[in-house]
Amino acid sequence: MLNLSIENKKEVELDKFSKENSSFTDCIDIELKKVNGFILKHIQSEVPLIPLLSNHLFKSGGKRIRPALTILFSKLFGYDFGNRNIELAACIEFIHMASLLHDDVVDESFLRRGQKTANSIWGNKASVLVGDYLFSKAFQIMVKDNDPRVLTALSDASRSLAQGEVMQLSLENNIDVSKEKYFQVVEDKTAKLFSASALVGGIVSNVSDKLLSLLSEYGKLIGTSFQIFDDAMDYDMSNKKMGKEIGDDFKEGKVTLPVILAVSKSNKNEREFWVEAMENVNQKKGDFDHALSIINKYNCLSDTKRIAASYAKEAQCILKKLPKNIYNQSLISLTNFIFKRNI
Amino acid sequence: MLNLSIENKKEVELDKFSKENSSFTDCIDIELKKVNGFILKHIQSEVPLIPLLSNHLFKSGGKRIRPALTILFSKLFGYDFGNRNIELAACIEFIHMASLLHDDVVDESFLRRGQKTANSIWGNKASVLVGDYLFSKAFQIMVKDNDPRVLTALSDASRSLAQGEVMQLSLENNIDVSKEKYFQVVEDKTAKLFSASALVGGIVSNVSDKLLSLLSEYGKLIGTSFQIFDDAMDYDMSNKKMGKEIGDDFKEGKVTLPVILAVSKSNKNEREFWVEAMENVNQKKGDFDHALSIINKYNCLSDTKRIAASYAKEAQCILKKLPKNIYNQSLISLTNFIFKRNI
Repeated sequence: MLNLSIENKKEVELDKFSKENSSFTDCIDIELKKVNGFILKHIQSEVPLIPLLSNHLFKSGGKRIRPALTILFSKLFGYDFGNRNIELAACIEFIHMASLLHDDVVDESFLRRGQKTANSIWGNKASVLVGDYLFSKAFQIMVKDNDPRVLTALSDASRSLAQGEVMQLSLENNIDVSKEKYFQVVEDKTAKLFSASALVGGIVSNVSDKLLSLLSEYGKLIGTSFQIFDDAMDYDMSNKKMGKEIGDDFKEGKVTLPVILAVSKSNKNEREFWVEAMENVNQKKGDFDHALSIINKYNCLSDTKRIAASYAKEAQCILKKLPKNIYNQSLISLTNFIFKRNI
Repeated sequence: MLNLSIENKKEVELDKFSKENSSFTDCIDIELKKVNGFILKHIQSEVPLIPLLSNHLFKSGGKRIRPALTILFSKLFGYDFGNRNIELAACIEFIHMASLLHDDVVDESFLRRGQKTANSIWGNKASVLVGDYLFSKAFQIMVKDNDPRVLTALSDASRSLAQGEVMQLSLENNIDVSKEKYFQVVEDKTAKLFSASALVGGIVSNVSDKLLSLLSEYGKLIGTSFQIFDDAMDYDMSNKKMGKEIGDDFKEGKVTLPVILAVSKSNKNEREFWVEAMENVNQKKGDFDHALSIINKYNCLSDTKRIAASYAKEAQCILKKLPKNIYNQSLISLTNFIFKRNI
């Protein structure tokens, strides 16, 4: 079932974003290392399967963009009196890791970032249960932190994440998904946790409610941009190096923005193709190429990226309203990077 | 894949425990109805699959023993100043419901309490994600309650539950599981949430730390008794009316106390049988009957029930140290009932 040509690659290419991203976070290198240390310490358990599986997921890379947001915003506002930013950043990464384990079970994925998924090695049962463990661990960490505002932000984000995942499942194999529903899924399953990541950075630094609203909004915008761009990548042949299997969403009949835009412009024959390929999931060789040709015929990939870029641009405007320092500069570079990749 | 003779039963028999149990909780009938109302209200969502699947699970019965413990202990100590006991009892039932959804995926179960499982109707994906939703919903409810002691009790219990489930998975298909490991799984996956259920009842009533320790201990003992008895049921032919498919644990190679005791007494031939049937899961017709004959030859079912009873008896002693009123009487009856079923 595995694509051996990919599986056998000895040197797994880390995704380009991750490499380029690292330079943006140089100023919080020490803190991110502490976050990693905290995560590795807290996935230890008397049950060996828990660290085994969690370590595999953790060490397969990942952008750590959510913890970076928490750290960067905490430092931007001068947080320097403890480890709350480290521990809560790790806690947020735990929530994200739990969702990845369950995602891979739900999507029946065999590869993530070019490496075998946990479910393909240890089975779906282990991934479901270790995912539950990581989520409950996150919950313990934030309870220990004991700040009602943090608890509310992260419990709300977790509920949205789960709701967004269920909504996405309900919308599979339906090419007439409205753009509104799609954006609701993006907001719930991705943007809300980004938003909470930024917000928590501000909460630990005791900034004003007005500033907290700005951070929350920034996170939501950048998270939305990030997810839409991620959905575009799945139809972008020039991005094979991401490690992600290009065409995954198509194969699963998961309708995302490039297809929604393409369907809205398709003629009768093209519409019949989408119905057969994505609603009936009756796909034959060459169908993905045909899907790409329709998407490109109507410029839907570039339109999708343009929409993603518009969110990143809005996010950029928010940063201009915040104190200027190296952490803000780091956030500007990060946002710029996402913006530039989208245009 | 489904057993049609069971599936087609129009009238599903609710389990005996649930019916008999109801008489013990007459004194909190109003509160339990409020708990049900709260649950039904909070499984509403803009995503129809969430209430659809959750309602199915919720309406398929269940003992509601955890919420009953919270309510009974809160009332025993005179709680009468709000809805915290109702809301937290519902919250605990949400955690339990989430674990049931994931359990059924992990165990590949088709029936629960004589009715089709959610995963057999809507698929594993939906059960995994709606389980996540219910768990995060529980988390939101307790965050809103905003009591660090409740949050700590429930986050610790949730982590134990997940850890116990993973440990159980690691121990499958190993007939040499020690009794210690088995008891660790029972404590983590079941007893800790029972313990937290009792404890939360005391917390909302602001009782002393000494009393809280007693409640926590009571819950742990009754939960342990309950789980061991549940494991015994799976080898008890006289309990087919439970709705649970008798022999499930055997089919899955899940090693529980009746088998641990039987293996420790088995001769060479019998040991070879256990290895083939439960480690290699190479089972043929008549194997379950053979397993029962070995278990009964060495009185392991009655020994298992006796062990379960000893925990219930210890729990009973704790109740004698608490204030005497109708709620304590209700708890004594409930505990007696479990005790008597075990001897």
